[in-house]
This record gives sequence, structure tokens and C-alpha cells, in this order.
Amino acid sequence: MKPTRESCILPPLLPRELKTKPTHECGVFAVFGHPDAAMIAYYGLFALQHRGQESAGIVSSKGSDSPFAMHKSMGLVAQVFSPGDLERLTGTRAIGHVRYSTTGSSNVKNAQPFVVSTARGQLAIGHNGNLVNAAQLREELEAKGSIFQTTVDSEIILHLLAQPYGNGGVLSALRRIEGAFSVVLMGEREIIGFRDPHGFRPLCIGKKDGAYMLSSESCAFDLIQAQFIREVEPGEVVIIDNAGIRSEFPFRTARSAFCIFEYVYFARPDSTIGGINVSKVRVEMGRALARQHPVEADLVVPVPDSGIYASLGFSEELGIPYYPAFVRNHYIGRTFIQPSQHIRDFNVRVKLNLIGEAVKDKRVVVVDDSIVRGTTARSRVVNLREAGAAEVHMRISCPPHKHACYYGIDFPDPEKLLANQCTLDEIRKYLGADSIGYLDPAGMIRATGRPEKDFCTACFTGDYPVPYDEKFDKYVMEKRAGRARLLDKEEPRLL
Amino acid sequence: MKPTRESCILPPLLPRELKTKPTHECGVFAVFGHPDAAMIAYYGLFALQHRGQESAGIVSSKGSDSPFAMHKSMGLVAQVFSPGDLERLTGTRAIGHVRYSTTGSSNVKNAQPFVVSTARGQLAIGHNGNLVNAAQLREELEAKGSIFQTTVDSEIILHLLAQPYGNGGVLSALRRIEGAFSVVLMGEREIIGFRDPHGFRPLCIGKKDGAYMLSSESCAFDLIQAQFIREVEPGEVVIIDNAGIRSEFPFRTARSAFCIFEYVYFARPDSTIGGINVSKVRVEMGRALARQHPVEADLVVPVPDSGIYASLGFSEELGIPYYPAFVRNHYIGRTFIQPSQHIRDFNVRVKLNLIGEAVKDKRVVVVDDSIVRGTTARSRVVNLREAGAAEVHMRISCPPHKHACYYGIDFPDPEKLLANQCTLDEIRKYLGADSIGYLDPAGMIRATGRPEKDFCTACFTGDYPVPYDEKFDKYVMEKRAGRARLLDKEEPRLL
Amino acid sequence: MKPTRESCILPPLLPRELKTKPTHECGVFAVFGHPDAAMIAYYGLFALQHRGQESAGIVSSKGSDSPFAMHKSMGLVAQVFSPGDLERLTGTRAIGHVRYSTTGSSNVKNAQPFVVSTARGQLAIGHNGNLVNAAQLREELEAKGSIFQTTVDSEIILHLLAQPYGNGGVLSALRRIEGAFSVVLMGEREIIGFRDPHGFRPLCIGKKDGAYMLSSESCAFDLIQAQFIREVEPGEVVIIDNAGIRSEFPFRTARSAFCIFEYVYFARPDSTIGGINVSKVRVEMGRALARQHPVEADLVVPVPDSGIYASLGFSEELGIPYYPAFVRNHYIGRTFIQPSQHIRDFNVRVKLNLIGEAVKDKRVVVVDDSIVRGTTARSRVVNLREAGAAEVHMRISCPPHKHACYYGIDFPDPEKLLANQCTLDEIRKYLGADSIGYLDPAGMIRATGRPEKDFCTACFTGDYPVPYDEKFDKYVMEKRAGRARLLDKEEPRLL
Amino acid sequence: MKPTRESCILPPLLPRELKTKPTHECGVFAVFGHPDAAMIAYYGLFALQHRGQESAGIVSSKGSDSPFAMHKSMGLVAQVFSPGDLERLTGTRAIGHVRYSTTGSSNVKNAQPFVVSTARGQLAIGHNGNLVNAAQLREELEAKGSIFQTTVDSEIILHLLAQPYGNGGVLSALRRIEGAFSVVLMGEREIIGFRDPHGFRPLCIGKKDGAYMLSSESCAFDLIQAQFIREVEPGEVVIIDNAGIRSEFPFRTARSAFCIFEYVYFARPDSTIGGINVSKVRVEMGRALARQHPVEADLVVPVPDSGIYASLGFSEELGIPYYPAFVRNHYIGRTFIQPSQHIRDFNVRVKLNLIGEAVKDKRVVVVDDSIVRGTTARSRVVNLREAGAAEVHMRISCPPHKHACYYGIDFPDPEKLLANQCTLDEIRKYLGADSIGYLDPAGMIRATGRPEKDFCTACFTGDYPVPYDEKFDKYVMEKRAGRARLLDKEEPRLL
Repeated sequence: MKPTRESCILPPLLPRELKTKPTHECGVFAVFGHPDAAMIAYYGLFALQHRGQESAGIVSSKGSDSPFAMHKSMGLVAQVFSPGDLERLTGTRAIGHVRYSTTGSSNVKNAQPFVVSTARGQLAIGHNGNLVNAAQLREELEAKGSIFQTTVDSEIILHLLAQPYGNGGVLSALRRIEGAFSVVLMGEREIIGFRDPHGFRPLCIGKKDGAYMLSSESCAFDLIQAQFIREVEPGEVVIIDNAGIRSEFPFRTARSAFCIFEYVYFARPDSTIGGINVSKVRVEMGRALARQHPVEADLVVPVPDSGIYASLGFSEELGIPYYPAFVRNHYIGRTFIQPSQHIRDFNVRVKLNLIGEAVKDKRVVVVDDSIVRGTTARSRVVNLREAGAAEVHMRISCPPHKHACYYGIDFPDPEKLLANQCTLDEIRKYLGADSIGYLDPAGMIRATGRPEKDFCTACFTGDYPVPYDEKFDKYVMEKRAGRARLLDKEEPRLL
Repeated sequence: MKPTRESCILPPLLPRELKTKPTHECGVFAVFGHPDAAMIAYYGLFALQHRGQESAGIVSSKGSDSPFAMHKSMGLVAQVFSPGDLERLTGTRAIGHVRYSTTGSSNVKNAQPFVVSTARGQLAIGHNGNLVNAAQLREELEAKGSIFQTTVDSEIILHLLAQPYGNGGVLSALRRIEGAFSVVLMGEREIIGFRDPHGFRPLCIGKKDGAYMLSSESCAFDLIQAQFIREVEPGEVVIIDNAGIRSEFPFRTARSAFCIFEYVYFARPDSTIGGINVSKVRVEMGRALARQHPVEADLVVPVPDSGIYASLGFSEELGIPYYPAFVRNHYIGRTFIQPSQHIRDFNVRVKLNLIGEAVKDKRVVVVDDSIVRGTTARSRVVNLREAGAAEVHMRISCPPHKHACYYGIDFPDPEKLLANQCTLDEIRKYLGADSIGYLDPAGMIRATGRPEKDFCTACFTGDYPVPYDEKFDKYVMEKRAGRARLLDKEEPRLL
Repeated sequence: MKPTRESCILPPLLPRELKTKPTHECGVFAVFGHPDAAMIAYYGLFALQHRGQESAGIVSSKGSDSPFAMHKSMGLVAQVFSPGDLERLTGTRAIGHVRYSTTGSSNVKNAQPFVVSTARGQLAIGHNGNLVNAAQLREELEAKGSIFQTTVDSEIILHLLAQPYGNGGVLSALRRIEGAFSVVLMGEREIIGFRDPHGFRPLCIGKKDGAYMLSSESCAFDLIQAQFIREVEPGEVVIIDNAGIRSEFPFRTARSAFCIFEYVYFARPDSTIGGINVSKVRVEMGRALARQHPVEADLVVPVPDSGIYASLGFSEELGIPYYPAFVRNHYIGRTFIQPSQHIRDFNVRVKLNLIGEAVKDKRVVVVDDSIVRGTTARSRVVNLREAGAAEVHMRISCPPHKHACYYGIDFPDPEKLLANQCTLDEIRKYLGADSIGYLDPAGMIRATGRPEKDFCTACFTGDYPVPYDEKFDKYVMEKRAGRARLLDKEEPRLL
Repeated sequence: MKPTRESCILPPLLPRELKTKPTHECGVFAVFGHPDAAMIAYYGLFALQHRGQESAGIVSSKGSDSPFAMHKSMGLVAQVFSPGDLERLTGTRAIGHVRYSTTGSSNVKNAQPFVVSTARGQLAIGHNGNLVNAAQLREELEAKGSIFQTTVDSEIILHLLAQPYGNGGVLSALRRIEGAFSVVLMGEREIIGFRDPHGFRPLCIGKKDGAYMLSSESCAFDLIQAQFIREVEPGEVVIIDNAGIRSEFPFRTARSAFCIFEYVYFARPDSTIGGINVSKVRVEMGRALARQHPVEADLVVPVPDSGIYASLGFSEELGIPYYPAFVRNHYIGRTFIQPSQHIRDFNVRVKLNLIGEAVKDKRVVVVDDSIVRGTTARSRVVNLREAGAAEVHMRISCPPHKHACYYGIDFPDPEKLLANQCTLDEIRKYLGADSIGYLDPAGMIRATGRPEKDFCTACFTGDYPVPYDEKFDKYVMEKRAGRARLLDKEEPRLL
């Protein structure tokens, strides 16, 4: 027998240097009333893989007569599930989850969905987002006697749901949580999907063969040939059971705050959000960028894959030829052996190799979606210079990143963000570029065709729709041991 | 990256037919104050492997300043831990557990130790035994809002410990649980070991290099060259912390009820229990059996390994030569491919091959420790007859098994126990033996040198020291779904 | 211990349906005189992964004093080698190989490099190509007493090298083999690279830190920052040893016959072959295609990744906007679970999802590099039609494939090639396209800037530079058993 | 896909210190004409596992119309084969092999059976023993052009069989090899078994369901309920084909030289060799030992499992009670983590724990089958002394080991054998025993009931039946590189 392991420590998924992009947070999927529920969820997660590549899981149910079946593991969807695993996930209902940890350590214990047994029967949950009052809720629940098995804020939602309430049922529980949350929840009789009142993260409804589905993004419906119905509204609770689909709106009304970075980078280009195709928004961002920061050049070169559509818009707006001079290696996989000292900038070049001949003696515009730390962007410029590019102009299809995200995206610490350390000209010099240009906030928003008030732009502007105390949270959620002193409490003792 | 999996279903460890013995329940080990705490726990579990071969785990701690480290997995101790796993289990304190499930399904989720975070800080638990009021406690806790992640009764103890109590601390929690429990518990400042007031399962105290240890059996201390101090008394709570070791006796006094089957079969022959070496008790049982059921014969043949010492006693008492005519195959491992139809009784013979020449034309006494279903014993007799044995006499070193165990041992359903289906002579005929003899209860007890009132003999006599409602328990603990109707409750609904 | 397995049968790497392209044959790499030889070879193979994804291996050497070290396995380069594996590959010399079987079954036994011990000392070989006289040579060698452990033609080269020759050394051995072969060979004192006199497959020379290297393609030198020196000439034998690098030309002169399909599809776009960058050749092919088969349309949509550069050329030549409307899923990995019956054309869509909004009501030109069976191309057209494309025009940047390749490429049987079954208009109808256009042979060749006489175009024209008897080969090489009757020989018997 | 690896270096199977016994060499099994041939071979290997625990393999055949199917791997039989592996091993004929390397490194490449294709068709071989003229034959074959893929002498037999001979067929090939060899060989039409003319290693013939079988030991026939027919005679070649079974005797007559250590230690106690059951021979050895070295004592304690039967004979002869005071741990498995420095003699005690109470204040005789290095025996004595034994007397059921074995057994270098370093009294002092006694050669031989001339006793006496040049062999077979200088040859160069 091959032992099944549950271990507290897992090797890093990718060499740290490769994590040059803000990491996606999570993706959720649910299906109610389909004979192949687990299989449908599997394909749904497959299409949402870009939202979380650390762990994947599915929980299925036959209804109130049998226990939920679960399979989850560290790894990609295609690695986590074998045909036998899917066969064991019987039932016509299923929820699934892919995860890239923002809270909780990288650990199979923290992989979702979570399944528990409560006075309300069995519950399974999958959560995309980040609660801002997790620490307070956890302190409160522990004081009442709750025990916690993970460091993930999603476990708190389950505890709240399990508390004895009056007739209000779970809606009163949901009113306690604050922050960003797009959640799928499976009980013994229904599947529930809900989105926080600000609508930070996407969630949408689809239908196939008469069965309703929920998905973080619409691209999952394309793959399984389901019909896209509509998005779940901010603050909406959608209940799907044998009687059909219905909605509740238990939350206080709040300003809309959809994460604009989903348009810029996170969402798949083939998804539709807010009625607009994401790739088209990116082309528009490229056009706006070209108008704001035009340049005379011979080639527009995208950084694949995130910069492709903005590059095309930039190229078309200025009539400069587009050339994919960076070639992506599709085989690097999730692990490879660290570069020897003999090879400089290996990690940057192993992902993308430059076609040197294409840029030699050319004035090149490089278009990417964002700059975080700047090390990768700098290597690209060096790469182009060494290949003989006459000029290198860097263009970025969003404003400079200066602030942390508390709503589910894993940016580096703000002090490590390049735009917090340098002026625009210092950035240009650091990168070694001949010029640099960022799209401004207004241009970015205008490219979506939606009004500014719809969006959260906190990572650019520092304007946070929901307040958050990072310090308190870290001590309570992650560093359980020793927190007594930090919170001026007596040390715990058993006897 | 090799994914780490957590799956609800695990392939069977052994072909069912091979499980011809009642399966051991669990073994626990703990060490406080040793620089190699996890390594010591690893070797301790190694020596306790016979008590549980399904999963193994260790949790270690550096004290109240850091999070507990955990590693657990399905498999044998030698499979579960790599050197790297042990290195990551830092700290001077550790508890460990090996498990053969009696409650809860075979599932890494149910593998122990469990670790949780509570208002009393981090807690880790390892449990040997079975609570008889688990279902009631669980109903009560869920009604208060507790959520359950496993179907193992040990999780209930953690919930009780996490409840807000007054100054009584955890002792008042312990008074709530009933049944069989030898438990090791690790908090942020101490390790606690306790044994139920009946003392169903063993637990003893050792010392090495100044550090105190707890172990299910004393044989673990031999391996690590620790000093055996004494057994934990029934109803005793032992607290080990930086101040040393001390005891509490929170439970109501109860009659002693140590499982006599530990002497007959479960414990390792090199363990000392109640001041007596187990192998010597078995030799005495063989002698008593010989006196109660003497026979004229040429050879005494043990069924290895469980029948060896009783065979020797039998052989010596009657002066009949001892011959190990059954040869054990040490390489069958935990899985092998099922026999083809061409080979009869394969599973029985693959474990033990008979030296036919040794028994040809001989009158043979076969001595084993117990008969459960009878299928294996029958195959042994057939085997001897085919090899040409002149007579085959079966002798069993304990009384017939007729009743279920509710205190931690996994017998088959009582209706499948051979002794419940047949008279003594029918058993003899079924086995095909020339004669049969079981040791009677009085002889069995006398062989231990301890008084009858010390023991639980429920599996032989049906006299249960603590009452138990099996039906209620099964519905609540294992079959969560659908229990509403069974308990005449309304079906759970979320909204 | 986790057993290391050598098994005759391996599960298929990819669902058959996904193999819609002719599969690459092999890639080879070698390095002599570098302290990190195995590491350099590892990165080299990494960059050559597109040439073979079934198995990978490296053999390293310290010279004539110690045994060669080897590690090879089924899988991708990043899966096959762990850091520990590379550490064990000590020495300053190494050869490596990636493989996609064209001869020999998919089996670790057939993975290269091969290592043997001969009267000339240890030999290791890595081979890209296909011998056309393998069967004859094998018959001849077996008759002399040689034994074969694989069904791979490369083993034959080793046998020839091991034969006792006069002073001619290995050069006389090399003269015996015919067909396509770019080979790296390591002896105890030297590394040898050679290319068949027709030069079917590429092979080039690089240099880094004073050490010479050989690689199938120049893109490997980019990754490790080695200097590209030149290509090995057709018929050239390059010997690298402690004395430096030198050449021999043992073969009879032959017409040049470089595989033009390397330009069209096989080689990486960032490689340089024959002095010309591959991506630029593909842009030129797209321009020529546009001139030969112009069309009025709104969008040019590439089939990624193979159609990207030809699409750009097509778009630029006609001034029709380029739009990457097919989005590639980067996470399908090497295995995923087969689609349920509920999802049509799943395998095609899981790789590429169409951005429906981008093509709605548009006249679309789809550009791809080739059509083999036609099933995938057809699904793409259906996909576009369902998304509402007004017109769909298919353009292919090479002529129709009609003939088998005997020089190392794994095409389907000629009767399964779409262009052999249908006229041009039937193809158009089968695909459901509004129009279809293939680039003609002259246009294809002109795009390379090289003369027609340089190339093998057999798969388009049926004009084979070297004759080959497929029937004889199959019986002898793959179906050893039973061949006696087929060859009118007596059945083999031992006694 | 989980890669299948073939690597040159494998982690050690067991901590070196645990290898305290000479290791078994190999076991072979064959079956011809049974519908479940591979399954039968699997069970046969299972029963022969004690003869080789490093690798296992089976090759099956349907006859001359199809290729042989093979599965082999490092590991135990139960680990190496999955049900699917066995299903793929189709056909009515099969040969199998278990291996503990004596020549060739520990490497899946060296795992047997070997399969090759030759002018005589496909051949598969499994070999138990050691050729003494392997190096000469290999030099000769390489000079003719043969290539070698392993360092195992068995490959040489295949090369010899593949050479072009006249009408003599393979018999003339067999006459070339010298040394110890019990071989099973599968061609396309027959299975052949042969034993060297001295008969060093066992080989016997069985029958089940009309199908003939060959096995190293008769215990394999018991497990599959086959009938034991007879042993293959020294120098006999048994041919099994569709016409039945027949014999040839191609070798020159030679003195019989069966390895007496098979009786003492290697063979399973339930096997019958030379018409005598092995366990009975061991009891007789114990009796003879008691007569030669009697002692007054309270207990006879066997070292399990190898000393059990000799202990019983010793106990019975002198009337001293037998007590299995060492308890074997059945769960150590093939790997476990090395002991920390805190625990002395851990490796010895982890295998066997002493029941201290049983030996306290007792005069103990410890009986084992042999002493090799003496470190383990010494630890046992220390163990007994620490437990309070009054006296410790060591008795060994064979003479002192002083010489290397060249016929298939892996003893330590002679200079590391305890009996070569010390006088008898020094051995006693080193072990810390009160007395020591070895069975003398005459007594050992008499216990078998067979004449002295039947046996090879070279490891005790240094009287080698077949001469052997170890130095030449090592350089040629294992250290291929650099051998040129050692053999005064020119260094190999290719060009």
C-alpha cells in the first residue's frame, strides 16, 4: 500500500523567483442535479485552474441519506484526480475548489472544500476571497468552545453556520462576516452560492442539461458547454435545491467594489465579466496606453501571455507591427532544478526565450500588464539589449502598484513593490529602458466601459472599501502559539 | 511535485480473509523534555506497531511559543516517516499514535494524533479505547454549535476540553466521558496522560535521560533503553511539565476492568503488565490448558506467532515434544495479489506453510490463542490431515469468544463468532479435529496470578462493566446523513 | 523502499485524440569538458523538450577511469531528473536525449541514451532519426551472434561500433548505416557527433566556458548562454576530446535533404537553421499564403501555438487585423480524465477555448501550419460557426500531407491523411469552411530563402531521397516472434 | 503520468548493520503449459523470496507467434507486481527470478530475467549461481563484437547461446560455462532448466494440472499445491516443450558439490533437499552440537528464525527447557530511520527484543546457525547479561566460517570474518560468553544423512571444487573503465 500522507510542511511549488506575478487567490465551482456532478465539477475546476494551482478538491453528495464523498490534495486538477477518485465521488451534487493560499499555510489540511458535520447536518464549503474580521470572529468562537483545525478563514464561516440560531437560519450567520467572499456551500438538501455585498470577487450562474451551476468565471461554462445565465449580484445569496433556484439578499447594502485587477490580469481572457469580454477590455487598455504614452518604434513585443491583448491594442492604435519575440516554454512544469551559477537570469529566460534575430537593431516597445518587484521586467530589458535592440520602451497596461490587497490577492509586502521605492524615472533607470509609461487609473477604468464607482482600485490608490487590521489578524490566525502575550492575555494552561 | 492526497476512501490493507484475528485497537506514546523527542516517539511507535497498523502519526512541540508540528499518514510507522519528516518534527515534546480503526472509517482524516487550536491554546490528542457515550456527547456539542471533521470519538474529547469551564479546567471535561480510554494529550505547556477509571487499556510511565515518557506497553521502553517506572493507575491523570510529574484523580471510583485479552493475545509477549511478563502468563495458560484438556500425542505444534508460548506450556506440562511445523512467510507484506481459483486455501497457506514430513503419521496437538470465525483453524486441520497426521487435537488458550467488545477491540459481529453458532462438539466437527479443548475462564484468570475482579472478560462472559447502546452510536457517529429520521428529528435545512 | 520498475507496457501519455499533430522524433545534446556537464545537458534537454516528450535521459562520464553514470526514465525532463539524480551524474562529459518513439515501443527499455560495454570500452549513444536499413543490419548481426535487448534501431549502431574492425575504427562502422541520423556518441575518451550525408535532421555546435557542445537545435544554446558556433554539416563526423575539436567526412557524398517540415512545424521558432530564424520563415510562409490565397475578411485568427507566425504574416500581407481568439489552457498536463459523453469535442476545446465575442458576426481567417487527419481542424470550424462567425476561411502554411515519413517523423498511416482521401473541395466541405487554401511547395521553399535542392519534401511530394522497405522492417524490428515464417525461415529452436 | 525510472544507483535496501547474515543469492521458477502461468510463477517467487529480496521479475510467453511479455523491478515480489502487471503477462509459459546481487550492482538494469532477441529467436534467462570463468568469456565475446548492457554474468550465457553454432545447438554453448549455475531458460518453443555438473545450487521439478514446473526449492510447490517430482540432477539439462519433458547430459562428469550451507541456513525449513526435510536436518545439527558441546544450563534460547530448529535439537538432546526469549519485530520492513546516538545497539534490538524476565538469573544457552562478523552475536550476549542472565553459552550449528564463496553466496571479505581474526577463545572473549562451541564439519555432514563427498564445504574448509581468479573477474566485470591499464592493454579509443 502506498501511504496517504498528511503533513504540515510541503515543498514550495515553484522556485520563489518564478513567482513574479501576484498570485491568483481561488476558484470555486458548484453543480446541483446533474448525473455526472463530480465530472462536471472536475472540468469546471480545470477551466478555473489559473485561479489557484496549489490544491484542488471536490465534495459530492447524493442528498440527505448518505455521507458526502470528498477528494482533495495538493497539486493541479489533472494531478489530483484519478478516474477512480472521480468514480468514488458519487451523487448528483458537487462543489469544487482550486486554491492558491493567501491565508493559511500551504498544507493539505488547508485545502478546500472543507467538510464538517453540524447540528444542521453535513456542510461543505469552498471560498474565494478573504475575511477582514476573521481574527475577531475566531477569538469569539474559541471563547464559546469552538476548536479550529486549520488557519484558513473559511473554517470560520462553517463555525458560524453551525451556531444555534433562531429561525433566521444561516442568513444571520452570513451577516457576521466581513470582507471579500464568493462562496459555494453544500448542505444535505441544497447548494448555496453567495457573494459579499461589495462583490469583490466574481461568481456566476450557468445551466446545463437542466442542472444549475455556479462558477467563479464564465470560461468554465464554455468548456462544459453550459449556458451562461447571469452573474450572482453583490450581496446576493442564491439557493439551489430540488425546488429550483431562488435568491435572498440578507446583507446591508454596500458600495460595489469589483476588483479591477481581474480585468487587467487575473481573469481568463475568454471570460465575460460585467457583460464585457475580458480580452476586449485588455485590447482597449492597450489602445488607451498607446494614446497616453505613444512612441516611435519598429515592433511591439508582448510579454506572454498576460501582455498579449494589450500589446495588440497598442500595436493597432499606433500602427506599429506586433511581433511575439518572446517564446514561451510549455514544459517547465511545476518544478525544475535550480539553475547553476553558470547561467545568469536563468529563471526568467527558461520561461521565455527571446528570438534575438527578430529584435536586432529594432526600436522595441515591450507591453506587459503590470510590474510588481521589477526584477523580471529588468531582465527582459537586459535580454533585449543583449540581443541588439536599438531602443527598449516599456509600457504597462495599468497604473503602478503601491498598496497591499486585503481582499484575496497575494501581492508582495508594499515595501517591496517597485513603485513604492522609486520615482517613475528611477523605475525607468532601474529597468534600463529608454522610456516607460503606465496606463492611468481613469484610462484603465474607461477601458472596461463601466463607471469608476463599480470598482475596487485599492492596490493602485490605497482607497480600501472595507477596513482591515493586518497586525491583529496575523497574530491570531497564523501564529496561534505565543499569541497570548501579544494579546496581553494569560498563557493557556490545561491544569 | 508529488501531490499529497487526502481522500475519503482507502484500499483495504489486507485481503479480508487474512484478518482472522481480532484487530488491535491503538497504541499511544508520549515524551516530554527530550532533545530527540520526535525520534524517541518514532521508535516508541515502532515497538507498538502491533497495536495498530493502519495509520501512524507524531505531533511535536517546542512549547508555547511556536506552532505544533505534525506528520501523520496511512501506513506502517516505517513507511509513514522519512528522515526529513522526523527532522521537521522539532521540539522537546511529542506524542504519537498508531491506529487500527474501531470507530471512524479508514481514512487519513481519522488518523491520529489530532491537533486543534482552542481558547486553551493548541491541543493534540492520541487515544486508545472507545467512548461509550460518544454519540450523546456529540449531539450535545453540535447543539451548542460545535462542528465535527471526523467520525472518531477522540475528536469529542477535544471539543469537551475546548468548552469554557470555570476554574475546574480540563478535569471537569474529562469527567464527562465514559468508556475505555488511555489517552495522551499535549498542550502548550504540558503533556497529560490519563486512563479511564476501569483501566480497560494499558498505559505506563518510563524515563530516559531525565525525560518522562508514556507508552501503551512497556516493550517500547526496552527498545529505546528507557527505564520502566510504573503503570498509570486506572482513573489517574498524570501531568508532565517543566515542574516534573504529578497526578490527579478526578474520576469517580469504579471497578477495575483490565482487558484480559491483552494477556491472551493483544499485548506483545515481551511487555510487562500488572507486574507480570506477558509471555510467562501465556506459558501458564498453556500449562493450565494441558491440565484441563490432556491428550496422548506425539507433537505439540504452535500456530505462530500467537500460539507459541501457550504451546510451550502445553508441551512441557504433558512432556510431549514441541515442533514448529508451521513456517511463517515473512514477506507477504501488506498486500499481495489474490489467489487464482486453482489454489485452495491459498490465503491460509501463504502465511504459514506446513512441514509435511514433520507431522506425517504423528498424533498432533495444535495450540492457538483463540478461534474467531473458525475458517482459518479449519484450514489448518485440513492442512495437517492432508500431510498425513494420524490425529489432530485442537487446544485454545482462552474460553470461547461469544460477545462483542465495546471497549476498543474490533471483533466480528457476534453472530459470526463460531462459538455462538455451534456447540463444542459441532465446533470440533466443523474443524475436523479429533478433539477440542478451550481453557476455562477460571484457568485463564489464574494464569495471570491476579484476582478475577481485576478484569473485563465481557467478550467471553457478556458481563459488560460499562453499558453501551450500539444502535444509537452507529447512527449518530458513522451515518450522519439520514440520522434525522432515525432520531425522529426534522431534516436539517440551511435556509 | 519504493520499487523501481521496468515494465513492458506503459500507459499512453496523452489521450489519442489529442495527438493531432505529427509527433516530434527526438532531440540530442552533448557537452565535453564542463564541470557542470550533467546540469548543462539537463538544461539543454529542457530546451529541446518539444522534440520528444516520452522519455529523457542523461549519461555522464569522468573519463576512462570510471564507469559511466546514467539516469533515464519515461516522462518530461522536469519529471525525470531530481536534484539528487543530477548530483549522481558526475563528470565533465555528458550526452542527453529526449524521445518520442517512432521505432520501438513506448517502454523505458527503449529510452535513450543507451550505454554498453564493448571491446572499445564503454559507449553511450543518443540518436535522432530513423535508419532505413535497420532490419537488414539486425539480421546480419544476429547471424554473427549479436543479441538485441530493444527494438530501437539505435542499438544497431552500437553493435556495429562493437564489431572488430581493422585500423578504420568506428568510421567503417558508420558507413554501414543508411537513413536519417543525427547522433551523439560518448566513448571513454571522446564525444562524437555525426549527421547522415543527407542531413535530414539538424545538429549544431556551441561553446560555453571553453567547453564544446552539440545540440539538435540552437535554442538550447540560448538558454544556457552558450555561443552558437555553426551547424554540423551533412555527412560530417565531429570528434571532441581533450585535444579539441576536429572533423572527419567518412560518408559518400549525397544530395542534401534537410526536412523542410522542421521549418514549418517541428523546430522551435527561436531556433536558427541554415542561417535563418525559424519564426521569420514562418512569417514569410504566411505572407506567401496570403498572396496565393487572399480573402476578404475581418480577422485573422491563429491556431496556437503552431499557427501564430504564419498568421501574423498573413494578417500583415493583407492588412486584416490579427486576433488570438483561441485561448490556450496551460494546465492540461500530460494526463487528464476522458470527457464524459455529455460534452462534445471536449478534447479539442479543453486545449483551446474560443473567445466567442471576438468572432461573432465576423469574417474569420483561421491559419494553421498543417492538417493531418482533419478532425481537429473541423472542430475548430464548428466552434467558430457556433460562436456566430459570419464566414470561416481556412489557410494552411504548407502543402497537403500525402505521404509517410521514413526519416524520423511519426505521421499517421498515409491512408488516414485527409489529403489522400479527398479533393480540395471535399476537404473544404468536410471542414465546413467557406474556403480553403494551402501554400504550394514552391512558395513554401521560397520562404526559407534556400534552394529547393536542399530539402526533403517527401511527405508532400512522395519523392524519397533514400529508399526504404517498410514491410520488411516492421516484421523484423517489432514483431520478432513469428518472423521466421514471414521470412521463409525455419522456426527457431534451441535443442 | 508517474515516470518509470531506470537509474544506476539505488538506495541501500537495509541499513548495512542489519545485513548480519550471508545474503541469499537468487531463486528461479519456471512453468510450461499452464493457463495461469504468470500467476503460478508469481506465487512460486513468493515462496522463494528468502533467496533474493532485491529485485523480482517474470517473463511470460504465448509461444513463437508473439513477443515475450516482461515485468521486473527492484523490490519484493509483493511490491513488484500489481494485478494489472500480472494480467499483462499473458501466455501459458513463464519464468521468474528473485535476486540478491552477488555480481553486478544493485540496479534495475541487472534485475532478471533478461530477455533478448537473437538469431535463435527470443530468449529469456533466470540464473542462480555464479560463473567462475565469466571474465574470460566476456573478454572473448567482446573481442568478437558482443556488447554488454549489464555487469551480471548471466548475460554471458545469453551471448553464448546466441553465437552461431553447428548442429550442436545450445548444448555446446553450455559446455563453455564453468562454476555454479542453476538456470531456467525460455525460448520460443520450450523451457529449459539446467544445473551445473557439480550441482552447487538446488533445482527441482514439479507438476500441477498437467503442467511441468521448475523451482529452486520444493517449498514453492507446496504453496501452489503442485506435486514434487524430483530434483534436477547435477549436470542435467531438462527440456520441457509441447512434446513433454526430456533430459540431456552435455557436461563432463564432475564431483558432486552441493552447498551444505543451504541445509544450515539458506534453504527454507519446509523444503526437501536430497530427500531430506531441511528443518529435520537442523534439529539433528542441534542434537549433534549438544553432544559435542554439552553444558549445564537452565534455558536454551534460539536466535530467531535461523536458530529455532537447532535450538530444539539442542534442548531435547540435553533436556534443557527451550524458551523463545528473543521476540521478533515483524514490522521493521525494508527501511527505517537510523537510530539516534542515544540508543546503543539499536539495530540489533529493533529486530529482536529480549524478554528480560525470562532470562534473569538463568544460565542461558544461545543457539544460532552461524557467526559471520560477530558484532550481532556480541550484542545478543550483552543484551542477555544486562537482563541479568547468570551465564551465557554460545552454540553455533556449523563450523567457523573462514573462506569466501565463489559459487553464489555473498559473504563478507574473508579478512572480516570473525573466525579468521581470532582463536576460539578470543572469539569467546570478544562475544563476552562463558563458553562457545561450533559444530564440527563431520557432525554437520552426518546430520544430513548424506556422504561427505556430496558437498561443497569450501566456506569452512577452503577446499574449492572449481578454481576461480577473483582479481581478474572484479576488474573485468565490475570496473570496466580503466581495466585497459590493469590488463596491460591499450586504452580504448574510437577514432
